[in-house]
Amino acid sequence: MSRIFVGFDTSFVHDLPATLDEVYEDKINGIAAPLFHPRFKRDDHELSDLRDGPQTRSDLVMDSRGWTASVVGNISKYIDLDATTLSVRLSAEKIFKQEVAWASHLSVRAVMLPSPRHVYNSANYARVLNQSLTQAQYLQFWVRIPLTTRQQLNVTASMELDSEAGLRGSAMKTDEGKEDAQIDPWDTWDALRARCEYHPKLHVALEITADLPSTEEIQRWLGESVKAAIIPMNIFLTNRKGFPTLSQRHQKLMAHLFQHNIQFYLSGRPRHRGKLLPYVQYLHFLYSKRPNLDRKAQFEAPYLDYLQAPLQPLMDNLESQTYETFEQDAFKYNQYEKAITLALAKTREDKESVVMVVGAGRGPLVRSALRAALAANRKTRMFAVEKNPNAVITLRNLKTSEKWDNVTIVASDMRNWRTDERADIMVSELLGSFGDNELSPECLDGAQNFLQENGISIPCEYTSYVTPVMSSKLWNEVKVQDSLKSFETPYVVRLHNFYALARTQKCFTFTHPKFHGRIDNRRQAELRFTTTESAVVHGVAGYFDAVLFEDVTLSIEPELHSDGMFSWFPIFFPLRQPLRLEKGDDIVVSFWRLESSNRVWYEWSVSTGDGKRHNPIHNPNVSVYE
Amino acid sequence: MSRIFVGFDTSFVHDLPATLDEVYEDKINGIAAPLFHPRFKRDDHELSDLRDGPQTRSDLVMDSRGWTASVVGNISKYIDLDATTLSVRLSAEKIFKQEVAWASHLSVRAVMLPSPRHVYNSANYARVLNQSLTQAQYLQFWVRIPLTTRQQLNVTASMELDSEAGLRGSAMKTDEGKEDAQIDPWDTWDALRARCEYHPKLHVALEITADLPSTEEIQRWLGESVKAAIIPMNIFLTNRKGFPTLSQRHQKLMAHLFQHNIQFYLSGRPRHRGKLLPYVQYLHFLYSKRPNLDRKAQFEAPYLDYLQAPLQPLMDNLESQTYETFEQDAFKYNQYEKAITLALAKTREDKESVVMVVGAGRGPLVRSALRAALAANRKTRMFAVEKNPNAVITLRNLKTSEKWDNVTIVASDMRNWRTDERADIMVSELLGSFGDNELSPECLDGAQNFLQENGISIPCEYTSYVTPVMSSKLWNEVKVQDSLKSFETPYVVRLHNFYALARTQKCFTFTHPKFHGRIDNRRQAELRFTTTESAVVHGVAGYFDAVLFEDVTLSIEPELHSDGMFSWFPIFFPLRQPLRLEKGDDIVVSFWRLESSNRVWYEWSVSTGDGKRHNPIHNPNVSVYE
Repeated sequence: MSRIFVGFDTSFVHDLPATLDEVYEDKINGIAAPLFHPRFKRDDHELSDLRDGPQTRSDLVMDSRGWTASVVGNISKYIDLDATTLSVRLSAEKIFKQEVAWASHLSVRAVMLPSPRHVYNSANYARVLNQSLTQAQYLQFWVRIPLTTRQQLNVTASMELDSEAGLRGSAMKTDEGKEDAQIDPWDTWDALRARCEYHPKLHVALEITADLPSTEEIQRWLGESVKAAIIPMNIFLTNRKGFPTLSQRHQKLMAHLFQHNIQFYLSGRPRHRGKLLPYVQYLHFLYSKRPNLDRKAQFEAPYLDYLQAPLQPLMDNLESQTYETFEQDAFKYNQYEKAITLALAKTREDKESVVMVVGAGRGPLVRSALRAALAANRKTRMFAVEKNPNAVITLRNLKTSEKWDNVTIVASDMRNWRTDERADIMVSELLGSFGDNELSPECLDGAQNFLQENGISIPCEYTSYVTPVMSSKLWNEVKVQDSLKSFETPYVVRLHNFYALARTQKCFTFTHPKFHGRIDNRRQAELRFTTTESAVVHGVAGYFDAVLFEDVTLSIEPELHSDGMFSWFPIFFPLRQPLRLEKGDDIVVSFWRLESSNRVWYEWSVSTGDGKRHNPIHNPNVSVYE
Repeated sequence: MSRIFVGFDTSFVHDLPATLDEVYEDKINGIAAPLFHPRFKRDDHELSDLRDGPQTRSDLVMDSRGWTASVVGNISKYIDLDATTLSVRLSAEKIFKQEVAWASHLSVRAVMLPSPRHVYNSANYARVLNQSLTQAQYLQFWVRIPLTTRQQLNVTASMELDSEAGLRGSAMKTDEGKEDAQIDPWDTWDALRARCEYHPKLHVALEITADLPSTEEIQRWLGESVKAAIIPMNIFLTNRKGFPTLSQRHQKLMAHLFQHNIQFYLSGRPRHRGKLLPYVQYLHFLYSKRPNLDRKAQFEAPYLDYLQAPLQPLMDNLESQTYETFEQDAFKYNQYEKAITLALAKTREDKESVVMVVGAGRGPLVRSALRAALAANRKTRMFAVEKNPNAVITLRNLKTSEKWDNVTIVASDMRNWRTDERADIMVSELLGSFGDNELSPECLDGAQNFLQENGISIPCEYTSYVTPVMSSKLWNEVKVQDSLKSFETPYVVRLHNFYALARTQKCFTFTHPKFHGRIDNRRQAELRFTTTESAVVHGVAGYFDAVLFEDVTLSIEPELHSDGMFSWFPIFFPLRQPLRLEKGDDIVVSFWRLESSNRVWYEWSVSTGDGKRHNPIHNPNVSVYE
């Protein structure tokens, strides 16, 4: 985004086109406003047909492009879908649906819904909303949720048993004691969307408050589907020149929000000269201060939250374009050059060293090795082993054009090549997002036959990392595929709109070469995490780090991430059933790396730390789906 | 069942056919025995190929019919799938699968699995079992679970970080403090089957213990998929004549178990003269003491746990066979006769009373009304209104053959019939399993136009009841249909293998006639239940009771059930995601009766009482599926 969208949220508009013209002058991009006149507070007995005049302005005041681009409809706040009396509920439902239908008719892009009044008891709100969601064509539903709340729990002590045509129930009776409890607004949101089964058209309109919650709670909101942020003008401070400004913490929050596709709506009354304009200018100013996208961020931008199947370079031959992309990762090949230089330094100066690049692709590692040989001042013979015949053509051309006189091109699968040569250094780049997931262990176990007894493998070690994550966005992306198999598949994805419930932990480690003992690449891990905040687990994020040689490493683990490296996105293992956890709860993630005679696969499972709630084990036998 | 199956569970058999011949003499029906000789304790390095002799007896000692009918395979107890070291786990997995494969090869009907050793941490046991379940063709898996346990939690303090080829994890670290806690064996079972997603081939072999748990806990087991009960012979007492006998509480337990399709296996050493025979005879004696099936039970036997779509008599015409079945319910029509008699007694003696039967079917209510007129000594004119033209043929024949001289047959839908006649009494039988679910309210609202201002409707009131239930059997029956719609449908089913988490509560009530005020048949209910035991909610059971007139009622609510009445089975509303609750937890069940211009439907939802975990709202708009 080169610009942000700044709108104005208002509870009353008399003449919409006139108001829009007015706020456009203050650089406002659009408006969130009631679509029905609030004076027309309707009830069940007063329907449109019984009135003389229309209940609201005509749709003809603007064309539909105007409605879509500039207007979000505010659903009336007085609607109480969870009222104690059935007649009030039924009347509320009718009005709600009337307003939604009108919004849909106008082609506005979204309606903004009031926050549920009855925090722990918004079942009917959720039910009515869920019906609207399943019927919506294009309309989005943005629920206003405040960042913090001091309001008391709105809990009725007991529902009356109105024996006929009434509301039957005693559901809320035991809530009495809770009235003074502090409400976590995220709980309100979670209850609503869980009841609507994380519907992809249901989003959050986050109301920014003067007080801000903890950094962790803000992080959690950044993992939710926030489409709008509402900024009351009374939370702005005044700078020395009399202009509006935000506190440091609010500025930091804004910087986070800018990273997501969010519309901003000013609300309330302007309290500084110049009406809305200085607020709008200030927000654009904040936006302009954000750091420029680096090369990595530019590369990644189109892939945010986009699910991809992991590459299978062992089964499929990569395409030229794929090679091209990955060859541009200068950081990675510099690290390889450093590692090979260090490893060559360990070899005898007087002897020609043998370097084998296994899986040479279009040659980037050969180039790294050639540069390293120069840097380490060693005489070398090199072998570039590659199974993809298309890549071999490139390698043979490079041998000529770049004068790789000491390089032998071997067109063979590294697992089948037979040679009497023995390498001092074997270099490979077979790692996937989860380290071993592209079968690096199996390939290198075969290739180590070409290695001297005290030869070096680069990389010499790699470790996968996992952490449970919340991301209803990704969960929905998996769900729309509408098959069991889609939940039994790991995805490569540049995680963006997600929240990690805890810091990552190490999962599986592999080292190379392994000359002693039986080689067994099966692994099992059971990892216990303690959650920092209440959250819902939708899946497990996976990362890796690798030791190329000595202190030269590559990492995509979030805290260790190698600066500027863009070759790998994280991996995401989805869960069929989201699992809700409370703050401080433990969660156990089980992972298995399994093998049969002709394949390797993962199974995974998640349980609460108390051993009471268990998600099914995912991906049993993998082959049952093939 | 006219007989029970009594087998013998043994940990060692040398010569299987000889042993079988021997125990057959003691009236034993079959045997549960290891299929591998326990002396051949194998590990990963000693596979069958490396031995001289076979590891176990040949499959040729019996034909496959013999294996299937008489033998259940005991999986070796020493197999520790959740051992701390990976090598022990991998070896255990190999042995486990070898034994399962052999059992499958022999065509035994089931294998009996040892109870998981690591109660809160049997993830790998579950994973291996889950793989076997997804691959099994006919083989069932019966997991031994003791009714009570005093064993200590088998929890290792901390798993070692064996950096390579080892087991990665710290999952169990925080379990240390729990070692002395009393284990609920049901928790062990629930963890296992939840991880295997309630697989339909996974069952319980319940080990009867000398101590018995509470009646409620036993009830909960009767809701589980128990396929076998193992009875150690050392829990038998000795009666005055020196024969084995069970305590009163055990006898009561047996009476419960007899109601399900369960095999019984004696285990341990016989401690009374005559070897196994007196134990077998005693069990058959207990079985023979059970009360004979009454007419209702006989009628219901083939329908236990069988899911049916609710009747839609308003949309479809019932078949002759359906009428025939329901007409046999003498209790129901006697109640109608009593109610009509009481109602007629309220009419003036000197005046001819008008009785209308709306939805007369093949005439059973007309007969009740005619008998009632005799009993009350009232002169009547009757109208039998029926929309099904096939049933009308029957009615017209009956009018002739049974001389219904004062009865007028009206071939019409009660909602469309136009007449100037006004009834003193309107009789109908339009109730479904959930009371209003076959649209009785809508039909009677239309038909009340024929009723005098102070006329009487029989029934005059009906109420639905609900309670959350556990039944992995029914949940699986819904799941095999493999569509979202199957979880959004209520089923009529004679609930048998289920456990109600709490007593029922009233849901919706309707009264007739309703001459005053607007008629609104929409309803909403939010009901809070407190669970008696930890359990998993798989759905909501529904029932109804009806007041025909004054104190004459019909009821299928479990505690009020009308003796001998068999016309209605309960209704079952499934949940897509099972919801686990702890003992004493509250659960809130929300129910909505909704209507659009041309249909009526229910939506339902379940949440934990703390408002933290929510199941999606089921069946939104119903029409999205049509």
